[in-house]
Amino acid sequence: MNYRMLFRLNGQVLLFEAAFLLLPTLISLSYGERTAALAYGEGLLICLATGLFLVFVISKGAKRGFHAREGLVVTGLCWVVMSAFGAIPFVLSGDIPSYIDAYFEMASGFTTTGASIIPNVEVMSHGTLFWRNFSNWIGGMGVLVFLLAVLPGSGKEKGFTLHILRAESPGPSVGKIVPKMRETALILYFLYIVLTFLNIIFLVVGGMPVFDSVCHAMGTAGTGGFGVKADSFTSYSPYIQNVTTVFMLLFGVNFSIYYIIVLRKLGQVFRDEEVRLYVLTVLAAGILIGTNIRFLYSTWEETFRTSFFQVASMITTTGFATADFDSWPVFSKTLILMLMMIGACAGSTGGGMKCARVLILVKSLLRNIRKNIHPRTVHVLKINDRVISEDVIANTHAYFSAYVIILVVLTIVLSLDGFSIETNLSAAICTFNNIGPGLDQVGPTCNFAAYSDISKLFLSFAMITGRLEIFPILSLFSRSTWKKI
Amino acid sequence: MNYRMLFRLNGQVLLFEAAFLLLPTLISLSYGERTAALAYGEGLLICLATGLFLVFVISKGAKRGFHAREGLVVTGLCWVVMSAFGAIPFVLSGDIPSYIDAYFEMASGFTTTGASIIPNVEVMSHGTLFWRNFSNWIGGMGVLVFLLAVLPGSGKEKGFTLHILRAESPGPSVGKIVPKMRETALILYFLYIVLTFLNIIFLVVGGMPVFDSVCHAMGTAGTGGFGVKADSFTSYSPYIQNVTTVFMLLFGVNFSIYYIIVLRKLGQVFRDEEVRLYVLTVLAAGILIGTNIRFLYSTWEETFRTSFFQVASMITTTGFATADFDSWPVFSKTLILMLMMIGACAGSTGGGMKCARVLILVKSLLRNIRKNIHPRTVHVLKINDRVISEDVIANTHAYFSAYVIILVVLTIVLSLDGFSIETNLSAAICTFNNIGPGLDQVGPTCNFAAYSDISKLFLSFAMITGRLEIFPILSLFSRSTWKKI
Repeated sequence: MNYRMLFRLNGQVLLFEAAFLLLPTLISLSYGERTAALAYGEGLLICLATGLFLVFVISKGAKRGFHAREGLVVTGLCWVVMSAFGAIPFVLSGDIPSYIDAYFEMASGFTTTGASIIPNVEVMSHGTLFWRNFSNWIGGMGVLVFLLAVLPGSGKEKGFTLHILRAESPGPSVGKIVPKMRETALILYFLYIVLTFLNIIFLVVGGMPVFDSVCHAMGTAGTGGFGVKADSFTSYSPYIQNVTTVFMLLFGVNFSIYYIIVLRKLGQVFRDEEVRLYVLTVLAAGILIGTNIRFLYSTWEETFRTSFFQVASMITTTGFATADFDSWPVFSKTLILMLMMIGACAGSTGGGMKCARVLILVKSLLRNIRKNIHPRTVHVLKINDRVISEDVIANTHAYFSAYVIILVVLTIVLSLDGFSIETNLSAAICTFNNIGPGLDQVGPTCNFAAYSDISKLFLSFAMITGRLEIFPILSLFSRSTWKKI
Repeated sequence: MNYRMLFRLNGQVLLFEAAFLLLPTLISLSYGERTAALAYGEGLLICLATGLFLVFVISKGAKRGFHAREGLVVTGLCWVVMSAFGAIPFVLSGDIPSYIDAYFEMASGFTTTGASIIPNVEVMSHGTLFWRNFSNWIGGMGVLVFLLAVLPGSGKEKGFTLHILRAESPGPSVGKIVPKMRETALILYFLYIVLTFLNIIFLVVGGMPVFDSVCHAMGTAGTGGFGVKADSFTSYSPYIQNVTTVFMLLFGVNFSIYYIIVLRKLGQVFRDEEVRLYVLTVLAAGILIGTNIRFLYSTWEETFRTSFFQVASMITTTGFATADFDSWPVFSKTLILMLMMIGACAGSTGGGMKCARVLILVKSLLRNIRKNIHPRTVHVLKINDRVISEDVIANTHAYFSAYVIILVVLTIVLSLDGFSIETNLSAAICTFNNIGPGLDQVGPTCNFAAYSDISKLFLSFAMITGRLEIFPILSLFSRSTWKKI
């Protein structure tokens, strides 16, 4: 294990975090919030000092020898560390007095979950509100990939970057974008920024204050779901709700699709099997839930606006709400749980299993049925007319086993707090898949404050594990990671 | 598709069922229950007539050409047909007036589930009580394997028998017992019968009436869980409860282990990884649940008697109860749901995923983590020091995907009836894993009667799919099964 390099990268991440913390400091200052400004300023200095210490003292003379395991470990650790330092200003500002609560909130922010322990966000300082949503936005980009794309020289070592990209990028495989990784990352960030700006403009045009628009657009872009209002999007106008539905869905699409659109190959977009699964699931779920909740609303327009907003929010794992979906009929609630698990497209900012994985799992299952029926025929698995390698299939299956095992174990651990099975199961699902609100006592009108500190740590952990798609975190606990070779 | 052979085997199964129906007919007669005796007699004649018609008229001149797909299809169909005919006497006797309810009850019997739609079993005729539990016992044996073992000449075609055995036997792989299949099956049945008799004797010694003892022993042997008392085992003496705990656990062990015991290689038994997982899970769950429910009982003895009874009943997927575990703390209930899914050992009469599969899934996951950490090393998966083939691993993963997908879809379908998520999820888990009682409105003091007819059909279907370990039923819906080749 190349410990020095590990410290060095963690230090670099902290330096970036210090830079990021400048924004909430300035915003608090501009709103005249002295305590908050001081808190964010202090947080900035702590990150800066620790970062400098790690980069220039501890990791002096670090060698660049990096293997797959270092890629996994550094990714896992960075997210844990980043949340630990980002949580400090929450406590210092007095907005979130308990450090464990603050850690939960920060992990929820960076992992783009959006689950909260804050009873009423409207009494928070502007600095805190901004920092929460900014963390959604940063988390959506993927911190390390960003670092590698921006830092001069880091892109040189292709093997290393690939390991990081593999560990931090959502989806079953790092596809053909790999060769020109750094360039690709920069183009993707450009798209990400452009879409975020568009979203801000659309919200401002709808009459939303600029500060709220920026926060909400960042929460939407990262598919995070933190808001600045206690009732999320419920009181906003139909226009703003619809704009948000559309942007949530846009941020849930595989970003490489936007390349293809820029190249004007629109036909190809709709032939993409993952996009088709995504669109069809959204349509089917929106119509089914809409029909199911029709009796709660006075017009069809309101019904389907609400159902499609919620479907978009759940499948993209954003977590905004325009209704207390916990009070909906059981059928709709069950569908929502299912959407939470499916998640968005691979290569988007969304969480969950990802449509691509669902596709691989289902196709691999169908292949196995055919294999059982005709044992002597060779069967390959194709997506978009390309053969999927057995390695990717095996990885997807391992991911799925780990996914289910973690959900079950998490639900058991949470059950020690004595809440209902529905509460615990939905809390496990909606943190691990980076959604935010769940059902029953963690429903959209409630929050996670009631869980014990131990449960909150497990949930924070689940959020990071889910965001990094399991393996970087699991490998932290594997003996073979730390063994000398 | 060899349709004639398919009809022929279904006919043979019905002839066997006619023979089996003789017993409840005689028992009803001996108890002076005229209506019930008539009903079971008529059921017998219907099975006999249809069976003869299928064997000697429809399938005349059937050729023996049989492939894997025929093995899958015949297994899937037989269980559907057998339940359809076995349900007739329930309706004719007036014990279960609705045919759909009767079908549910019969499927629940043959699949060794033990889920019931009967509000009070104590008002049933003796014929019906016996037939319910006898179906548990028959189902535990595996109908077609029995047929092949007993029918002279069927064992000749090894390929064919192997296909059936694969389709009907529980567990991830048909192991080394395959070569002498017919002999092996007969030895296993001998063991099954001996253990059942031992169980009857132990119960009778404890003061249980002979009829009840026979019924309960059959319910235990098949890990079915139908009982003859409304409160299952709650009112029985501690002795009888403990005897049942032990026998449930014995029937949940891989039967080939008893060979090894007969060969006096006891050390080898405890080195078997599946047995170790099974024993450790039982011990851990029993102690955890016992500690969790201690406050409900006056003595430690009663507490652990109850917790171990329930753990044994759940992991072996029997479904008996000595307590209303639905009113236990959430932690215990969540553990119970987990035990339901794990299930017993492969090659036992129990349902669920089976310990062997859990072992393969976990080991394959760990292997994948190691692979990610050291991509260039070759990693094999071993159980009991033997390398598990990649085919078995792939099959286990396909099984697991199908398992989770079916559970999710089933829970969604059930949610249309409007019961709680906990009710639907536990109903899906406990029918699909062939347990019996679930939680909330399908808890041990309730039954499945409240579900709609459509839900009951889906649940019956889930029970059969679970008992046959998914693929024989799924292949009924695959185009490639019915395609000409």
